[in-house]
Parts: sequence; C-alpha cells; structure tokens
Amino acid sequence: MKLTTVRLVTIIAEPVLKDRLIHEIHALGAHGYTISEVHGEGTRGIHASQWQGGNIKIETLVSPEVADHILEAMADHYFPNYAVIAYVTDVQVMRGEKFA
Amino acid sequence: MKLTTVRLVTIIAEPVLKDRLIHEIHALGAHGYTISEVHGEGTRGIHASQWQGGNIKIETLVSPEVADHILEAMADHYFPNYAVIAYVTDVQVMRGEKFA
Amino acid sequence: MKLTTVRLVTIIAEPVLKDRLIHEIHALGAHGYTISEVHGEGTRGIHASQWQGGNIKIETLVSPEVADHILEAMADHYFPNYAVIAYVTDVQVMRGEKFA
Repeated sequence: MKLTTVRLVTIIAEPVLKDRLIHEIHALGAHGYTISEVHGEGTRGIHASQWQGGNIKIETLVSPEVADHILEAMADHYFPNYAVIAYVTDVQVMRGEKFA
Repeated sequence: MKLTTVRLVTIIAEPVLKDRLIHEIHALGAHGYTISEVHGEGTRGIHASQWQGGNIKIETLVSPEVADHILEAMADHYFPNYAVIAYVTDVQVMRGEKFA
Repeated sequence: MKLTTVRLVTIIAEPVLKDRLIHEIHALGAHGYTISEVHGEGTRGIHASQWQGGNIKIETLVSPEVADHILEAMADHYFPNYAVIAYVTDVQVMRGEKFA
C-alpha cells in the first residue's frame, strides 16, 4: 500500500475568526478543512475572558509548504492580537496527490 | 515509563456511512473507536453539495497491520463513491497490548 | 520558520471525571487544554455500559516531561478503575516557549 505523508494543521481560535481563517487557509493553498467545536482554557498570557468558552477547531490536510505558509500567517496576523493556537503534525494518506 | 507506538486512524465521512464504517473497522480488527461531529468543506473533486454540512469523524487506535487494512478498505470500498477522508498517524500509549 | 516540537496529549474519559482530570493536568504542568464531546465504544475489557455514550476528549500541548507525568498519572490513578484512554504524539508549534 502506497502512503504519502502530508501535514495536518490544527488551528484553535475564537468563533468570530471563523470566516477570516477559512478564507486565509484557502488563499494559502488548503483544498478542504473540517471545523468542530471545542471548549478551552488558555495558556499563560491569554486572558481567561478572551479564551474561555466556545472555540472552533479547524483542521486541514496540506502539503508541507502550505503548512508552513499557514503557520507563518497565524504567527504574523493572529498571534499578536488573538488567542489562537496552531500546530502541525505529519499524517499518512492514500492518494496524497489530492492534498498537494 | 514504557510506551508503545500504535496507530491512530481518522476517518471523516458522511453520517449516512456511520454504521457501515463502524461495522467495517470492527471486522478489520479495531477494538474501540470514538465518533464526533465535524463540519467541513471538501477537497478538489468533491462536490460541495455532497460534503458541506455535518460529517462524522471516527478515530480508532489500532496496530499498524489493522491500520493498513482499514486504509485499504477505505480506498477500495469508499473513495470511488463517497467523500471519505482517511489518514493515519503514530501515537504512543501505555499498555499498548490493549490495541494489538 | 522556527518550529518547536511539543507533545499533544489526548485523554478520553467519562464526563464525570472532567473536573478531576483538568485539576490533575494543571497540577502536573499543563497551561491550557481544550475539551470536546465524543461518543465511543470501548476496547476489550471495558464494559460497554461504562463506556458507551457521551465522553469527553481533553487535549493539551505540553513539554515531553509534562506529557510523561500526565500519562503516568492516568495509568496510576485512572486506568485501574475508569474507562480512560490516553495517548501522546509529537506536534510542531511556533513560539514553543509557551508550552515549556
């Protein structure tokens, strides 16, 4: 069985950022995503009032290059002003060309 | 602390496939799973009408062999006709014998 | 882009354990977490009556040391008496010092 390694990018953010984040990851090359609801409490330096309560978790399977671009966009455009968490991990898929 | 590496298989699919997918992963050797609800928008080649809206995410911890069988079943039985995404990653557990 | 590897710890448990688990992971060094609802069916050895139905999934990004401590606590304090699943995987983040 031929497996291809792609990157799973996970973004956790306030619901108000949903449309903006989806637009941004699409513009950076993501072809699809899923969204789910999570509740959370933040890391050091995040005010509980900002972060506690409902949040969205966006997950997208992308190429390593697109993953880098998404993380850079999160750090540049969101980290300074929003309680956004972003992380990336390798996953394996069949038919990896869909995510290139 | 002794950790064992097992594989986390994630399947994202239309809710109508739920019972069939659970039956299939059990038959292939999975001993347990979790299901959650996600919303998503598809990759290239998937009609938005098929994929947009509520979907299910099934996650199961299995041996590498069972993970391979599940991915093969997804590719053979679902990819041609359904908007199914499947990916696998290594995770570490204690008491890995439960997932063998 | 400078990425740091941290560990994503995932715990799946009965909702009744929520406050106790959050208290425990905080005490062991986690600075934040997310919780979502999942449904599941257990592995061998777990009574369906205990496990089936709604469960919580707790996820937290932590250092390797804290991840080890959390897994040990799960094995020592919960595995004997509760249907708890815990696993860990490496993920990459920007500004990893937040999770140290």
